[in-house]
Amino acid sequence: MERLAIGIDIGGQSSKCGVVTQDGTILEQSVVTSLIDNFDEYLELLAGTVKDLIRKTAHRGNVMGIGIGAPNANRLDGTIRYAPNLRWARDTEGKPCVIPLAERLIKATGLHVRITNDANAAARGEHTYGVARGIDDFIMITLGTGVGSGIISHGRLVYGHDGFAGELGHVCVVQDGRQCNCGLKGCLETYASAMGVARTAREFLQKESSDSLLRKIDPESISSKDIYDAAVQGDELARQIFAFTGRILGRALGDFVKFSSPEAIVLFGGLTKSKEFFHDEMVRAMNDNLMQVWKDQIRILYSSLKESDAAILGASSMVW
Amino acid sequence: MERLAIGIDIGGQSSKCGVVTQDGTILEQSVVTSLIDNFDEYLELLAGTVKDLIRKTAHRGNVMGIGIGAPNANRLDGTIRYAPNLRWARDTEGKPCVIPLAERLIKATGLHVRITNDANAAARGEHTYGVARGIDDFIMITLGTGVGSGIISHGRLVYGHDGFAGELGHVCVVQDGRQCNCGLKGCLETYASAMGVARTAREFLQKESSDSLLRKIDPESISSKDIYDAAVQGDELARQIFAFTGRILGRALGDFVKFSSPEAIVLFGGLTKSKEFFHDEMVRAMNDNLMQVWKDQIRILYSSLKESDAAILGASSMVW
Repeated sequence: MERLAIGIDIGGQSSKCGVVTQDGTILEQSVVTSLIDNFDEYLELLAGTVKDLIRKTAHRGNVMGIGIGAPNANRLDGTIRYAPNLRWARDTEGKPCVIPLAERLIKATGLHVRITNDANAAARGEHTYGVARGIDDFIMITLGTGVGSGIISHGRLVYGHDGFAGELGHVCVVQDGRQCNCGLKGCLETYASAMGVARTAREFLQKESSDSLLRKIDPESISSKDIYDAAVQGDELARQIFAFTGRILGRALGDFVKFSSPEAIVLFGGLTKSKEFFHDEMVRAMNDNLMQVWKDQIRILYSSLKESDAAILGASSMVW
Repeated sequence: MERLAIGIDIGGQSSKCGVVTQDGTILEQSVVTSLIDNFDEYLELLAGTVKDLIRKTAHRGNVMGIGIGAPNANRLDGTIRYAPNLRWARDTEGKPCVIPLAERLIKATGLHVRITNDANAAARGEHTYGVARGIDDFIMITLGTGVGSGIISHGRLVYGHDGFAGELGHVCVVQDGRQCNCGLKGCLETYASAMGVARTAREFLQKESSDSLLRKIDPESISSKDIYDAAVQGDELARQIFAFTGRILGRALGDFVKFSSPEAIVLFGGLTKSKEFFHDEMVRAMNDNLMQVWKDQIRILYSSLKESDAAILGASSMVW
């Protein structure tokens, strides 16, 4: 009988659950909706799915525990804290609140439960199963709707004293720059995320008068996918948008290196699909912002894990 | 018989050596000059001093090893790498080179030798003997001629894959800002060090026309001490210089928190003598650059170690 783990990736829309072997094979998976207003109902659904998965894989082995990656999750106390995008994590007035997710899921399933934020889970996933196997000092940057990060130092995740380390998406990259949802201005996330790229497009379209395929789209509904599609077709403005993004991201990566001197930076998430359009500018800007000892020394790696699997794998790896 | 350690703090002018007990008492100390052009000569002097100190404290206990804090020291391979300010660390053409300090001192003394950079040694010193005892997640910032840093995460120093982690003095705080000795522009060190404060004074004196005690001093020779003395006497321009320094430093500290989420930031070094003139602005700017979860949560501590002892204590703590 094998040792198995359950990995759960909780997102605002849906929660993906999978049973994973120690070598990183997903044996079974299920998706449940996250669009439930009541935590008790959500928990019942999640615990039911976990039990189903255990039944389905009982012939293969024993599930040793559950690992969860979720936004605003705190490893140290097992709670989800003020997650704006999780409907079931709100109080009776509809405000984001503190949810004792680990404690409740332990009670409901009888299994050991560990939780961490989604970017930390992704970093663990890369370290255990992905491009960062064997690399004990790296920084994971997730370029999705927002920008998340997980820092592995000496082979361990950096959690900080309160479990909230690794908020590199909110490092200030442009003084008095764009307003961020977090309340600060000029955060990396407002430039180097899918949302950020769309903001750059709107700014560039207004500022520049040059022709562009993007002018056919309502500015308010432009997505990073639209900009990618235009760039693929050779659209100059779309390419400038990605080059600008690469420069901002690269400069920030240079500063991150000065902190933990990683062997590599691992990039992950939807925006990396456009890497052909920002990679070179990003690497140049990073090296321009590095001292001699690091210039051209830091490896940039792109996640090799299938995106839908990576989060489940990363979450499950906390069980081992 | 007690267990003893030797701590050595190597600076550009002099090298301070001390014999330290496990509870942090310095039993004996000696200072040797660092102003020697030849490494073999310097090593002979240093090894001789170490042997003297061992003889003098032989009645108290056994020296278990040597810990060294030095600029550009790499813990992983025991070398000093391209230290611009150490005369004996240059090649025959006078260029900074790689010096196998640990290896040679082991041969000369028969003792176990560990080396690390001076800011890392200071962080270890605070953690073992100073204000950071019992704090397992903190960032040490040394505000001296330059700006150094040491990061303690989960009770351990962050070294990075190559031993060079924690170069926070070279994080870019002003885009296309002041030229730094490291080759980059806008580094924190060019603003928040003794040198940086003097540069700010020269800029402010040129830019402003207001009266100031500092106008009596040749701008090129203004020191941070002069500015402190003027601020003590109520000089408005001198106070503005420190307030400006505090704002730049505080904003940078906010970004550092997002990396490792420390319980505290520990400040050390000559510039902290002027803390009454920059502390409030620094704390305000730091909190203005923090998300809700950290606002007003991060403790700012000032080193409690006597400055001349701190480096010896920190270096010696590597032996235990």
